[in-house]
Amino acid sequence: MIVPFTRILRRCAVKGLGVLPIFCRKDMKQSQYFIPTLREVPSDAEIRSHQFLLRAGFIRQVAAGVYTYLPLAKRVLNKVEGIVREELEAIGSNELLMPALQPKELWDQTGRWDVYGGELVRLKDRHNRDFALGPTHEEVITEVVKDYLNSYKKLPLNVFQIQTKFRDEARPRFGLMRGREFIMKDAYTFHATEESLDEAYHNFVKAYTNIFTRCGLHFRMVEADSGQIGGSQSAEFMALAEVGEDTIVYSTTGNFAANSEVVDLPVGAPSPDGNGEIAHAKGIEVGHVFKLGTKYSEAMNANFLDENQKKQSLIMGCYGIGISRVLMAALEQNNDDNGMIWPKAIAPFDVHVVAVDMKKADQAEAAEKLYADLKMAGYSVLFDDRKERPGVKFSDADLIGLPIRITVGRGVSEGTVELKVRSTGETLDVNLSEIAQVVKDKYSEAK
Amino acid sequence: MIVPFTRILRRCAVKGLGVLPIFCRKDMKQSQYFIPTLREVPSDAEIRSHQFLLRAGFIRQVAAGVYTYLPLAKRVLNKVEGIVREELEAIGSNELLMPALQPKELWDQTGRWDVYGGELVRLKDRHNRDFALGPTHEEVITEVVKDYLNSYKKLPLNVFQIQTKFRDEARPRFGLMRGREFIMKDAYTFHATEESLDEAYHNFVKAYTNIFTRCGLHFRMVEADSGQIGGSQSAEFMALAEVGEDTIVYSTTGNFAANSEVVDLPVGAPSPDGNGEIAHAKGIEVGHVFKLGTKYSEAMNANFLDENQKKQSLIMGCYGIGISRVLMAALEQNNDDNGMIWPKAIAPFDVHVVAVDMKKADQAEAAEKLYADLKMAGYSVLFDDRKERPGVKFSDADLIGLPIRITVGRGVSEGTVELKVRSTGETLDVNLSEIAQVVKDKYSEAK
Repeated sequence: MIVPFTRILRRCAVKGLGVLPIFCRKDMKQSQYFIPTLREVPSDAEIRSHQFLLRAGFIRQVAAGVYTYLPLAKRVLNKVEGIVREELEAIGSNELLMPALQPKELWDQTGRWDVYGGELVRLKDRHNRDFALGPTHEEVITEVVKDYLNSYKKLPLNVFQIQTKFRDEARPRFGLMRGREFIMKDAYTFHATEESLDEAYHNFVKAYTNIFTRCGLHFRMVEADSGQIGGSQSAEFMALAEVGEDTIVYSTTGNFAANSEVVDLPVGAPSPDGNGEIAHAKGIEVGHVFKLGTKYSEAMNANFLDENQKKQSLIMGCYGIGISRVLMAALEQNNDDNGMIWPKAIAPFDVHVVAVDMKKADQAEAAEKLYADLKMAGYSVLFDDRKERPGVKFSDADLIGLPIRITVGRGVSEGTVELKVRSTGETLDVNLSEIAQVVKDKYSEAK
Repeated sequence: MIVPFTRILRRCAVKGLGVLPIFCRKDMKQSQYFIPTLREVPSDAEIRSHQFLLRAGFIRQVAAGVYTYLPLAKRVLNKVEGIVREELEAIGSNELLMPALQPKELWDQTGRWDVYGGELVRLKDRHNRDFALGPTHEEVITEVVKDYLNSYKKLPLNVFQIQTKFRDEARPRFGLMRGREFIMKDAYTFHATEESLDEAYHNFVKAYTNIFTRCGLHFRMVEADSGQIGGSQSAEFMALAEVGEDTIVYSTTGNFAANSEVVDLPVGAPSPDGNGEIAHAKGIEVGHVFKLGTKYSEAMNANFLDENQKKQSLIMGCYGIGISRVLMAALEQNNDDNGMIWPKAIAPFDVHVVAVDMKKADQAEAAEKLYADLKMAGYSVLFDDRKERPGVKFSDADLIGLPIRITVGRGVSEGTVELKVRSTGETLDVNLSEIAQVVKDKYSEAK
């Protein structure tokens, strides 16, 4: 008997569905992937990295200094974040995640609500309470840990997060370089002694050196002003680039390796030690390490009992990396007139398989097989299976700049494909029976 | 010759540092890990999952409805996000990342700026321009894709993001259940035909079934109102829980498996088809699938040319999962009086090694070795190496609720340790020579 009732919307569409077998197809076919490349150089993009990010379909502007990261850019971000996680966990840093919304009361304790100025994004909630959107998280982390860190026995503590940050730049510019919403890794350490802070600071310097080296950046560490955050010692990691916003000057006795001596000098000053000439370069700030001391802990009553049961202020350090800036800086350092040249550690994909004419059965079939085989061999592969003209496909492939490109064209009838190394331009015809080995060799050679 | 100059801060601390070998120590020793457990039940936490999240050191409140995810919670979130990524990539969804800041102009196009009400977080930038902090991203994604999706040849498109969202709840409550800042997975699809939308909708229902099943949730899919987003067909995925905010009613002819029949009835109504009794349960909404139709594309002039070169509005779907709610719902379904009982797929660690007395050399040594061996065998391991009383350690371990606990105590002198399965309470003494095999067996049995 069917009994009436007031409201049945519909039977559940789940009915009869089983649980799909869990395996990762991850079909990265360009016909179904979102890569909106552009032919024209966008007029508002002043620097090459910004131009290429727009042209290659990596980012789109939503408002001044506010961007959407499209799928290719998101893959690069995920890789950079993976490297950052590995290196920070290796120095014992614990990942957590703090909120963007920060109540004014916390910022009042340190006085930063009044000091920070127009760059702090402020808002009121429905109950008229004031909040900031966090540009940094010293107040929040100090509030979170201070009850727990009540004894020297619980120190040191080392935590980090990877998070979207907000800063209302007066003049957002250069795409991801000076945006109003951006992705940061920020870490905070807490200590009982200056020696313990020194050790953490040193560990972060080492970790940052590893991170930027692994991301393929040419960079320098430069002692710096600590600016609005305040503190006793700090240094910036600068990716060298013509378009950088800061001028750094260094002795040419070193070279571009990470362990060279770097000093911060006025432009044009002579060498400090007479052992080399002074060179100068511009830098994109990609990382920052600070010894904060007790500035925040004193303001927020964040104390611990030392070995003598005496109350002391927690000694702090903080450490930032601009994740979205690393992407920009890597690109600014690695491009040519045709487009991007991704360092392989952070490339969105390892290999680009380009089928010249998908309407030709032999080409389509060989390309599909190559795509499947390379994925099985452990490479991440983007497969251009679009029904586009060859010229469009080649120029898109150059623009996107994956480390290895394999073009499947007419040669397939004789069993060969073309392999191109993006960074060197080296091009060779390879027999399909040898392609696995050649890809392996050329990929391992690529930087 | 040392030449004077106006400003040298200091020589670079990087000098002499090499690049560390890349390997992942990931030392998860509790003495250096941030797990601020509490003895007392926090007075403001009404439901068990919220109480345990606070007591076990998973979250801390920063403001009403605004939380910090501490390291253990962040590990759970990372696991849930990993499962979501895998299942969505398996149905061909491309990950991207849109900004939180959304200009009012976009929301004016769809009229939502005026309609959305007090739950929309609004702010002005330094130039007095209006922005919303995104609770959903229909306007942004439509704006991002509409120029590209100008032809049926480029359809369908399927994209998703995992992102922090904002909603100014009048009454934030139940911890992560109804917060003002929370983590969502939101996906959007674009289609040329209703059939194509049907297919995507169906794929998402399958993917969601996989995701929630893998996360260990008991759940139902229920057809639902589409609320403020608007559209033609929608369904909610409800995790069953006494504390849920929505009442769902279903026929008991099915059972708690995912493929049972579920209908949405008023409480207490008789069975619709007479084949079973009516039961009712409360549900926590963890997912939502919507057929949006052309509501947004019409409002925003998002058109494509069909096969007959005729202009049509893009047909859309959108699909959400509350990532932070999944954590809360899993916990609400899996706990006992002593604490959390994590399903192994989303547990913060697989195994908890508890050294009873770190001052005893044989216990400390055996525990360190076990910790190293289990990590080498591929388990994620939390090692309680703290110099705390055994009672504190055991109660913390129960509270945190990892699937397998191994207690290294006095038995070590006879070569045995105690293994406990958290979900069943099963406890057994195991010889150290057999521990690897027993952990493997018990871990694979655990749900």
